[in-house]
Amino acid sequence: MNGAQTLVATLAGQGVEICFANPGTSEMHFLAALDGAPLRAVPCLFEGVATGAADGWYRMRDHPAATLLHLGPGLANGLANIHNARRASSAMVNIVGEHALSHLKYDPPLASDLEGLARPLSHFLRRSASAVDIAWDTAAAVRAAAAHPGRIATLILPGDTAWAEAPPAALPAFAPTPLKTPDPARIQAIARVLRAGEPAMLILANKATRGRALALAGRVAAAGCRLGSQFFTARIERGAGRTPLERIPYAVDQAIAFLAPIRHLITLETTEPVAFFAYPGKPSQLKAPGTLVHTLAAPDEDSAQALDMLLEALGPSASPPLVQPRLETPPPTGALTPLSIAQALAAAIPEGCIVVDESLTTGRETMGHTMGAKPHDLINNMGGSIGYATPLATGAALAAPGRRVFCLVGDGSAMYTIQSLWTQAREGLDITTLIFANNQYAILKAECANMGAGSPGPQAMNLIDIARPAIEWCAMAKSMGVPAHSVTTAEALHQALANSCREPGPCLIEVKLA
Amino acid sequence: MNGAQTLVATLAGQGVEICFANPGTSEMHFLAALDGAPLRAVPCLFEGVATGAADGWYRMRDHPAATLLHLGPGLANGLANIHNARRASSAMVNIVGEHALSHLKYDPPLASDLEGLARPLSHFLRRSASAVDIAWDTAAAVRAAAAHPGRIATLILPGDTAWAEAPPAALPAFAPTPLKTPDPARIQAIARVLRAGEPAMLILANKATRGRALALAGRVAAAGCRLGSQFFTARIERGAGRTPLERIPYAVDQAIAFLAPIRHLITLETTEPVAFFAYPGKPSQLKAPGTLVHTLAAPDEDSAQALDMLLEALGPSASPPLVQPRLETPPPTGALTPLSIAQALAAAIPEGCIVVDESLTTGRETMGHTMGAKPHDLINNMGGSIGYATPLATGAALAAPGRRVFCLVGDGSAMYTIQSLWTQAREGLDITTLIFANNQYAILKAECANMGAGSPGPQAMNLIDIARPAIEWCAMAKSMGVPAHSVTTAEALHQALANSCREPGPCLIEVKLA
Repeated sequence: MNGAQTLVATLAGQGVEICFANPGTSEMHFLAALDGAPLRAVPCLFEGVATGAADGWYRMRDHPAATLLHLGPGLANGLANIHNARRASSAMVNIVGEHALSHLKYDPPLASDLEGLARPLSHFLRRSASAVDIAWDTAAAVRAAAAHPGRIATLILPGDTAWAEAPPAALPAFAPTPLKTPDPARIQAIARVLRAGEPAMLILANKATRGRALALAGRVAAAGCRLGSQFFTARIERGAGRTPLERIPYAVDQAIAFLAPIRHLITLETTEPVAFFAYPGKPSQLKAPGTLVHTLAAPDEDSAQALDMLLEALGPSASPPLVQPRLETPPPTGALTPLSIAQALAAAIPEGCIVVDESLTTGRETMGHTMGAKPHDLINNMGGSIGYATPLATGAALAAPGRRVFCLVGDGSAMYTIQSLWTQAREGLDITTLIFANNQYAILKAECANMGAGSPGPQAMNLIDIARPAIEWCAMAKSMGVPAHSVTTAEALHQALANSCREPGPCLIEVKLA
Repeated sequence: MNGAQTLVATLAGQGVEICFANPGTSEMHFLAALDGAPLRAVPCLFEGVATGAADGWYRMRDHPAATLLHLGPGLANGLANIHNARRASSAMVNIVGEHALSHLKYDPPLASDLEGLARPLSHFLRRSASAVDIAWDTAAAVRAAAAHPGRIATLILPGDTAWAEAPPAALPAFAPTPLKTPDPARIQAIARVLRAGEPAMLILANKATRGRALALAGRVAAAGCRLGSQFFTARIERGAGRTPLERIPYAVDQAIAFLAPIRHLITLETTEPVAFFAYPGKPSQLKAPGTLVHTLAAPDEDSAQALDMLLEALGPSASPPLVQPRLETPPPTGALTPLSIAQALAAAIPEGCIVVDESLTTGRETMGHTMGAKPHDLINNMGGSIGYATPLATGAALAAPGRRVFCLVGDGSAMYTIQSLWTQAREGLDITTLIFANNQYAILKAECANMGAGSPGPQAMNLIDIARPAIEWCAMAKSMGVPAHSVTTAEALHQALANSCREPGPCLIEVKLA
């Protein structure tokens, strides 16, 4: 057995099922070790696809995927989506190939400061010193990553440790780290706040926005507390029959107005809402002055347990839990607008589907219209590095076979990591990608004014308008083996969405905006 | 005047002519400042295009371009091509937008350790502390970058320093840093070595492979010294009438055999040749045991001056300088092979063109056949992070209008930064991209065996073969506004290359390999 074989065996032994890979010469022993091993390897044509897919996998599975990256530049290409995953509390284990130790002193072209590149975004960072260490290092990496909240683990694998002999290691099987229990005194204080009846909102995030925690939050709402979410959430179980959450708006003025009546913000696995960007003369904090912030569950605590304790402290409620009713949306007709797009989605999406939302300007104001659609999961970009949606959808589809993924993405955003389409075709994934083609970085046009930088002049517009040439989305999709067509009306979009659920495999719908 | 306006004015004042940009909300004041400023801004759909294009610009101009990147993830997306530029001694000035200082304490989603991400690959790294500092910081960044050898400068621009008032700064105009003079005693020692007549090779690199230095090297060759280059060189002036350099092979065994007769390696702006990767049981150093290495010009010294001094010390030579004769290559016919591809190039490329080579397995053994073609510049990837060719060609074409760029790239490599095609179409650049479509990471198939990892099994091959689906290159190019067609014979390739020189603007030729 060599080091690479121990690594692969240990990953599999610790419950890692999949590796998103873009290997190079220094990772050849890892590739050889895959043969016959119970670890699925998925090829990616760019490293940002690999790390974004690992994020998507974790969001649906709650256990890390691995990535395989080639030295410093391979890691660097994956960093933006590692940033997004880190902000989403998604776990991943990045295996980064490195030169053999004996070779590094010659400073060959691909050498770089791997620890330096990995450190800013890694919670766990280790360089395996020998083949014998690899199994223990790998198990430590998986354990560190898989704790709650999920973390980024990066393991550097020098070539000589990969190819040297290593004894099989007798490692304990993976056991999840128990969640931390919230402080009962803190819960009692929050119960007193709610009993006092001042306007309060529970803000749910991360693992609190699904499963038992979300259902329990519906009972807290019955006790008179509003339920909210940040504008972006890692994954929300949403739609008819689920506990509905009010979304804090993205725009600073709207968010401030939304939060103005609230006197108490009670947080579950998140912090108080802050503006995404700073704008001249506008505050960073969105809550009204004097609003108190109470932590019901810290990011590493057990939200469901905190909610159990809170409900126990509040005592029985006369009202039933808050539940989202099914709202039938008639299929829209006419022009494609943010509203008709949201209506088409609301009407078309099937039960159990996954919506990955990077629609930015097209979906920002209107995604609320899908609230009463059939039950689905909604996934957002937590780190703000755009281009996350197509790789994330790729990983989510692999993690949740049988559940169609709808990937909503602006044309500007889609171009960052468009290579994802190839992996979607390769693996035959059930993903419907919607490209909102407005031929501009529309968000920047608005942000220029928000920033007090005025209307963009010709040079600035040259960097915002991406219409010359307009990207031909059907040709783009076809080039990577994904069938595609364009729609120009709301009825055509609705029909295309519905049709996409009938055919297995990926497809792309270009939503042509005026 | 605000901080962003000072920044743009100072860049232009220090001789920076162009900025490759992928901006976001935090860079809106920079965009506004561009209007009316003598700084050309070129939009890129991905940051790796911006940094690779800046590298290409420097290779042809010897003065830095700027890039505009959006916070940590924007910088991260540009790092792989910054790595390549750093290894090529290319200068660039990266402007990285950052949150306002007042906003950072709230740890908003896009916040990250910018200095941590930039430090491993930046020679100069500074965060502007106030609007007043920006002009001085910018001038310092350009000065640090533009020294010889070129360096990576990264300037972090917090939003509030961009939008705050700043007085105009009275800065001295840019003046290049004088090159360092080599130590005369060292030169005398090298002259003694050459006079002794033991087998010697001068290895030229960086700025020594062009202009006066290259011509002077031809006279050293006349004194009985072989002339060589590393396998990869930042830019070589090459072809008929230029001083020819023998290329040290890439493969370890071939390189060792090539260097075996040499007793003295004399370096100009480089170090002794080392293997690109370490392989089990093979050496990292390629020179024969006992070979002595002599530094004629260190990377920061003046090669032309060193060669002048050496020629002075050697005295007049009876032989004429070494010059590459023109070798007419008849246009090839028949199957597309590495040889016929090189012959088609040799026959078709016009005088003064630029060849950006990332052909890897397709061109590795055969690029020597273009040695007697019409005079041209040859550019290689110095850092080994693949996907450099399409953005580099983009920057080179902008830097050298009127000179067609031939971008030779494997299909696997091309997919890393394929968004370059869009910028090529946008700017109407005279670039002929050749995609060598073998539908695999062919280099890895060979490297698996070289690494002693045996023949790739089915799981390993799954990560090497990219044929399912095969990328449709004509559709890919068309999707981004670049006309394209496929060729399957050597005569069709030759014709397509020749045709591409007649039509202005970009085109793509898919070279279909069996």
